[in-house]
Amino acid sequence: MRRIAVINGPNLNLLGTREPDKYGFETLESINARLARLAAELDLKCEFFQSNSEGELVSAVQRAAETAGVILNAGAYTHYSIAIRDAIAAIRAPVVEVHISNVHSREEFRRVSVIAPVCAGIIAGFGSESYILALRALAAPRP
Amino acid sequence: MRRIAVINGPNLNLLGTREPDKYGFETLESINARLARLAAELDLKCEFFQSNSEGELVSAVQRAAETAGVILNAGAYTHYSIAIRDAIAAIRAPVVEVHISNVHSREEFRRVSVIAPVCAGIIAGFGSESYILALRALAAPRP
Amino acid sequence: MRRIAVINGPNLNLLGTREPDKYGFETLESINARLARLAAELDLKCEFFQSNSEGELVSAVQRAAETAGVILNAGAYTHYSIAIRDAIAAIRAPVVEVHISNVHSREEFRRVSVIAPVCAGIIAGFGSESYILALRALAAPRP
Amino acid sequence: MRRIAVINGPNLNLLGTREPDKYGFETLESINARLARLAAELDLKCEFFQSNSEGELVSAVQRAAETAGVILNAGAYTHYSIAIRDAIAAIRAPVVEVHISNVHSREEFRRVSVIAPVCAGIIAGFGSESYILALRALAAPRP
Amino acid sequence: MRRIAVINGPNLNLLGTREPDKYGFETLESINARLARLAAELDLKCEFFQSNSEGELVSAVQRAAETAGVILNAGAYTHYSIAIRDAIAAIRAPVVEVHISNVHSREEFRRVSVIAPVCAGIIAGFGSESYILALRALAAPRP
Amino acid sequence: MRRIAVINGPNLNLLGTREPDKYGFETLESINARLARLAAELDLKCEFFQSNSEGELVSAVQRAAETAGVILNAGAYTHYSIAIRDAIAAIRAPVVEVHISNVHSREEFRRVSVIAPVCAGIIAGFGSESYILALRALAAPRP
Amino acid sequence: MRRIAVINGPNLNLLGTREPDKYGFETLESINARLARLAAELDLKCEFFQSNSEGELVSAVQRAAETAGVILNAGAYTHYSIAIRDAIAAIRAPVVEVHISNVHSREEFRRVSVIAPVCAGIIAGFGSESYILALRALAAPRP
Amino acid sequence: MRRIAVINGPNLNLLGTREPDKYGFETLESINARLARLAAELDLKCEFFQSNSEGELVSAVQRAAETAGVILNAGAYTHYSIAIRDAIAAIRAPVVEVHISNVHSREEFRRVSVIAPVCAGIIAGFGSESYILALRALAAPRP
Amino acid sequence: MRRIAVINGPNLNLLGTREPDKYGFETLESINARLARLAAELDLKCEFFQSNSEGELVSAVQRAAETAGVILNAGAYTHYSIAIRDAIAAIRAPVVEVHISNVHSREEFRRVSVIAPVCAGIIAGFGSESYILALRALAAPRP
Amino acid sequence: MRRIAVINGPNLNLLGTREPDKYGFETLESINARLARLAAELDLKCEFFQSNSEGELVSAVQRAAETAGVILNAGAYTHYSIAIRDAIAAIRAPVVEVHISNVHSREEFRRVSVIAPVCAGIIAGFGSESYILALRALAAPRP
Amino acid sequence: MRRIAVINGPNLNLLGTREPDKYGFETLESINARLARLAAELDLKCEFFQSNSEGELVSAVQRAAETAGVILNAGAYTHYSIAIRDAIAAIRAPVVEVHISNVHSREEFRRVSVIAPVCAGIIAGFGSESYILALRALAAPRP
Amino acid sequence: MRRIAVINGPNLNLLGTREPDKYGFETLESINARLARLAAELDLKCEFFQSNSEGELVSAVQRAAETAGVILNAGAYTHYSIAIRDAIAAIRAPVVEVHISNVHSREEFRRVSVIAPVCAGIIAGFGSESYILALRALAAPRP
Repeated sequence: MRRIAVINGPNLNLLGTREPDKYGFETLESINARLARLAAELDLKCEFFQSNSEGELVSAVQRAAETAGVILNAGAYTHYSIAIRDAIAAIRAPVVEVHISNVHSREEFRRVSVIAPVCAGIIAGFGSESYILALRALAAPRP
Repeated sequence: MRRIAVINGPNLNLLGTREPDKYGFETLESINARLARLAAELDLKCEFFQSNSEGELVSAVQRAAETAGVILNAGAYTHYSIAIRDAIAAIRAPVVEVHISNVHSREEFRRVSVIAPVCAGIIAGFGSESYILALRALAAPRP
Repeated sequence: MRRIAVINGPNLNLLGTREPDKYGFETLESINARLARLAAELDLKCEFFQSNSEGELVSAVQRAAETAGVILNAGAYTHYSIAIRDAIAAIRAPVVEVHISNVHSREEFRRVSVIAPVCAGIIAGFGSESYILALRALAAPRP
Repeated sequence: MRRIAVINGPNLNLLGTREPDKYGFETLESINARLARLAAELDLKCEFFQSNSEGELVSAVQRAAETAGVILNAGAYTHYSIAIRDAIAAIRAPVVEVHISNVHSREEFRRVSVIAPVCAGIIAGFGSESYILALRALAAPRP
Repeated sequence: MRRIAVINGPNLNLLGTREPDKYGFETLESINARLARLAAELDLKCEFFQSNSEGELVSAVQRAAETAGVILNAGAYTHYSIAIRDAIAAIRAPVVEVHISNVHSREEFRRVSVIAPVCAGIIAGFGSESYILALRALAAPRP
Repeated sequence: MRRIAVINGPNLNLLGTREPDKYGFETLESINARLARLAAELDLKCEFFQSNSEGELVSAVQRAAETAGVILNAGAYTHYSIAIRDAIAAIRAPVVEVHISNVHSREEFRRVSVIAPVCAGIIAGFGSESYILALRALAAPRP
Repeated sequence: MRRIAVINGPNLNLLGTREPDKYGFETLESINARLARLAAELDLKCEFFQSNSEGELVSAVQRAAETAGVILNAGAYTHYSIAIRDAIAAIRAPVVEVHISNVHSREEFRRVSVIAPVCAGIIAGFGSESYILALRALAAPRP
Repeated sequence: MRRIAVINGPNLNLLGTREPDKYGFETLESINARLARLAAELDLKCEFFQSNSEGELVSAVQRAAETAGVILNAGAYTHYSIAIRDAIAAIRAPVVEVHISNVHSREEFRRVSVIAPVCAGIIAGFGSESYILALRALAAPRP
Repeated sequence: MRRIAVINGPNLNLLGTREPDKYGFETLESINARLARLAAELDLKCEFFQSNSEGELVSAVQRAAETAGVILNAGAYTHYSIAIRDAIAAIRAPVVEVHISNVHSREEFRRVSVIAPVCAGIIAGFGSESYILALRALAAPRP
Repeated sequence: MRRIAVINGPNLNLLGTREPDKYGFETLESINARLARLAAELDLKCEFFQSNSEGELVSAVQRAAETAGVILNAGAYTHYSIAIRDAIAAIRAPVVEVHISNVHSREEFRRVSVIAPVCAGIIAGFGSESYILALRALAAPRP
Repeated sequence: MRRIAVINGPNLNLLGTREPDKYGFETLESINARLARLAAELDLKCEFFQSNSEGELVSAVQRAAETAGVILNAGAYTHYSIAIRDAIAAIRAPVVEVHISNVHSREEFRRVSVIAPVCAGIIAGFGSESYILALRALAAPRP
Repeated sequence: MRRIAVINGPNLNLLGTREPDKYGFETLESINARLARLAAELDLKCEFFQSNSEGELVSAVQRAAETAGVILNAGAYTHYSIAIRDAIAAIRAPVVEVHISNVHSREEFRRVSVIAPVCAGIIAGFGSESYILALRALAAPRP
């Protein structure tokens, strides 16, 4: 069965409690459960990882090299982690950059993603639904 | 039945023939047909519009004010049309910004979207599948 | 009788309904009616034009070459339309740049006007009264 | 009777003699006299102040807190005096930023106004008529 | 007979009357007539188009896809129309960017051409002769 | 007989051998021979000069003060030699800036020409034909 | 007894009345009284000065050259007064830069302090308590 | 008893040995001991944490969510860690940004703090006394 | 007898005591005395003025309108006082900008002079001798 | 025997498999083995460390304080880790910055090294040979 | 007898003929003759050099290492020749940067001098008198 | 026997005497002698060239087209000579950019190398040893 890595970065462990006007009330566990259910329908298997540490996220992306795809919400590291970017560029699996909020309608510095140029695609602004769409995108025949 | 406006901007009438390494071989007609079929499944109705003219796109967005949502690929205008931005901000319907290619892995100037801050969400890089995902996003309960 | 051209740009057809906290509740028709009345008092005649299209606004400015003056609210095009700027520079009639809201207290990009350097004067921030003041300015002996 | 403060900044005491191609031949005294006459017609009373000192202009704006409005030509301080900006923001009376010349058609640095974002409106480019229009703007019902 | 598309952008319909110190006294009709004569000598056929509208220029470039070459004076759109740039990149015919005046000796913003990177070549500063040289360039064996 | 100075800058002595995908296979000698032939047809006489040294190019431009025109390919110095710019500004003969490749489709720094503002015109992107067009431009009645 | 100079800049005379959501309800007199009491406890003597004038603040800093330290809230001048900076650099007494609000969470231009590099330390964001902490800092053995 | 989290970032474990001209001779242990003593006086309890890892600092800030306040010297991460910024914004406890040296009198890049906008206040430049002042600030009634 | 105005700006009253490594040990009184002696030799008469206030310097420049020339060391205001710049531009007397130290070898912000473009000439870096040279320059026949 | 620390940063554990056109086919183990052999010849002893974590790299640099030198390939952290920079500045051992590829011929952001200013020297572009040269540089008498 | 080197850069050999509105009608020979006469009065001896070549100017500055001072008008090289800057920094003789025109009132790029930070002083804007003042400055006791 | 070109740029003829704290006490002759000896050991032959002239350095690089490699210390030209960059790009021999000092720990402008992107590798900061390492790098099998 093809595997999908779901990788979440810093402060996403707080989902559901942190600034709910921006990030909603759903916890990461709940989102992951929904992803697992949809994955089963699509004949895929999700593997979940969350860390606040840039280095561990680099390692997690490296470990996902042989998966069928990666759903990555790199959180704040999206905006400056060239290390994560290099890890994405180093693996063959397609990576979908995901954001819960519309990063473009917030602070200016959140409009820059250093990882976007090496990702396969970007989905942002649909709340927890962004993850679901990303899973569907990876399940669809690659563009 | 709830309506969805599908609005395409400049040069997207050339889809399928223009730079197929970037934009794929599928024509806009074919994409629209797929959208219409999925819309029917989701109990929605798509209305299609394409224009090379910024002013007509502004008017098209204005006319979509009462739809259930807008799928907008503004093409090159994405990067500088404050007029389209203002039209999006003036209507209540949620607008999803869509791109066929991953705009972030191309020229630097394509990384700036002046309309993104007033859109509900962004989907880019999945080829014609980007439109399909956008329709699903609008069909899902709003975040 | 001397003519004054009153030219309005993109999304100003929505006045009265669009974001009324920024643009007020008065419609463009109402403003134009007030301008027409004051013009009559001042022995002038107003000619009205609105378009969402940059090209049509360029043509409208060209057509106003022989008027006694132009009241121009170029809307979003204010910030990037060098084409409209060139049209203003090409005619002899004085052009007054008008804005309903104080563009300087909004987004940073609204603080730049590419047409201001070739206009005769600028009036901004007085709501629909901005148009009235512009008409008075054109009626007064030119500075 | 409602009072209007008319505050002029550095070098405006030279009006009529300084670079008349830019600023015209009318003296500040003459402009003030015209303002006083129009004010009387409008049932208002103007109070005049001019200073070359930034600090005195700050104090003058503070003293105008209870007027019906302020006509302010801050001259060169327009472009860098955050102190005057803060004074404007600290009072309740609406302030109209006025310029004799069209500052946008001169040196690049004159295109930036640090006070504009906290003013009620801006009028520029109509020679001494700019002051007259500002008085009319303050006399009109606030937008 | 091989065709050459001659496409002129905003305000070029005013040639001969607008700012003659910058653009000369020759009208667009006269230039086109000269181009037609030279084309006949070179066994080519010119097709002429002028519009103030960005969208119509995009469409005109698209229609020229099968010509032997395009002479394009995009006027003010030269400096910001990524939509026209994309149309040029989408067609196979070589496009020569033409300017009447030396754009580099005017305002700073006229020094940037967003279309130049996708054009075959650039000719600027020779008055109406720029068009003649462009036609010769297209008639010569491609570099 | 009127003289035309043909001045080539650094590395253009390598034409024909250096990066032929960018600069073609024709040598400078061959180009100069073609220029000489066309000049003869046009009743002009070309004088040729090439140097890798900025200072010698400054002197060459000074020596061309009394010619009927200068064809100048300043090579890399185009982008930073204010010294050559000053020499061009100091002479009365019109100077045509010439480039073999389309400098705008290469590295960003090649898009800036410090000499363009003081040249009569610019021709770029037509391979060795750029020189031929420049000669024709100088032979035509000045714009 | 060692003296401490307490110097306040433009608009701080309005404390307690001006934008109380940003600056609190305590007046400058009240703050100064609290400083005087704490100074007495610490065996120090405070000398108070407030002015809206940049020049008078320069002079006040100069006069404080022989004090045991300066508590300086330069208000808006913080962001551009190189004159005050030079005065601080010219005296031997340590200067503590103080702000009532957290200047970093407000407009971008308030994040730049031209005087900070020549001050001994910075305290910001604690309301009127910022002054108290500054006095304690000066009373403590210098770092 | 109310708790205060004292969190130190990268290289602060070297205090007392590293570049003592900038950071002084006091070790982190000594500073912490002084903080503990003062906390006891103020009826507070300090909890200490130091790490060179950005991710661990994010986690430490998250763990401090329920404390009465955080004293945070993020060291070099101050200048680029949006991840730590997001953690600060996600908790309710007030965070005081602390620096030993005056960061504004050092390299330019040290003048930017990405965490300052979400902190309650900033104290910098007083050597180890900066920590003591921060504790006093947190013990005082919040502004 | 022709008069020369010698105007000194903020902190120059401290000459001789302030940072003598940068500004030397000579007081302003001593420099002025030397200027007076040289003026007498040159059949000129110096009038001296110093102020820390920008507004008073503006007024001093205005008062010097009818002198034979102005020697102006605007101190820190050199770098941002557009008000003083405007005063210089408003008078007919030539103004020589003078600096004691070489401002270009100090902080970056001291390299910008907003008054230089409207001065007749600039002399910097020669210590108190800069004033003497400026007096000689004004005494010489104007360039 | 003098020790040399060889520290590698993020993604360098992938050497030999990751983008071999940029980084070559040699593994980190193989490079380290070659370094160990050369070190033995030079009477030195290498100690090897690799981590994807910025914090662990900071700690590794701290631990190398007493070595005879450090060979550091900080990978992506080179471009933004001020924390690693501070660690390098805090130790006395000389650090050589090493890169396998020529970072200057890649993306723009790879041209900035925040650690270079505090390193002893830089070696880049020689593939795995860069490490060997660095070891020789450290073995040579310090410059 | 102490020697002074007088070094002139590119295009200054044209003085008297080139753009006389900017540079005056006096030739370089005439200026040099005046300098020689004044030098004799001051018991100094001038040695003159002019070149259009940056490299020869570098060598000329090197050769002047043992003179009592250098009067350097580097012409256009002033704005970008780091090579000349390095030569100035390498010699002990003081160098006075001289300009005929006021470079600050011309194009923006002429306001930057890369050599000023390593010169002893700067004199600009006094026509050929600038050289005379520079010689006086070098003859005076060094600041 | 394979040849290596050793090319030194402006002011490097002063090595040993110029600013020895930055560049050491060893002369260029001594460095060249050491290079010649090591070359003999490595079965290579060095050819030496030094010039202060940019144009001569361009020519020297062109002449080195058929060598086995070039050791180039372009001195100040490193930072702006696109002409030398083009020469390097035009030849097939690998070029190693060499610097005596660590250019990154000096002035900001020395951190930019316009030639680095077309060089094979960079070595900086090891004093005269930088040349020795470069020779070893060229002698090693190319990466």
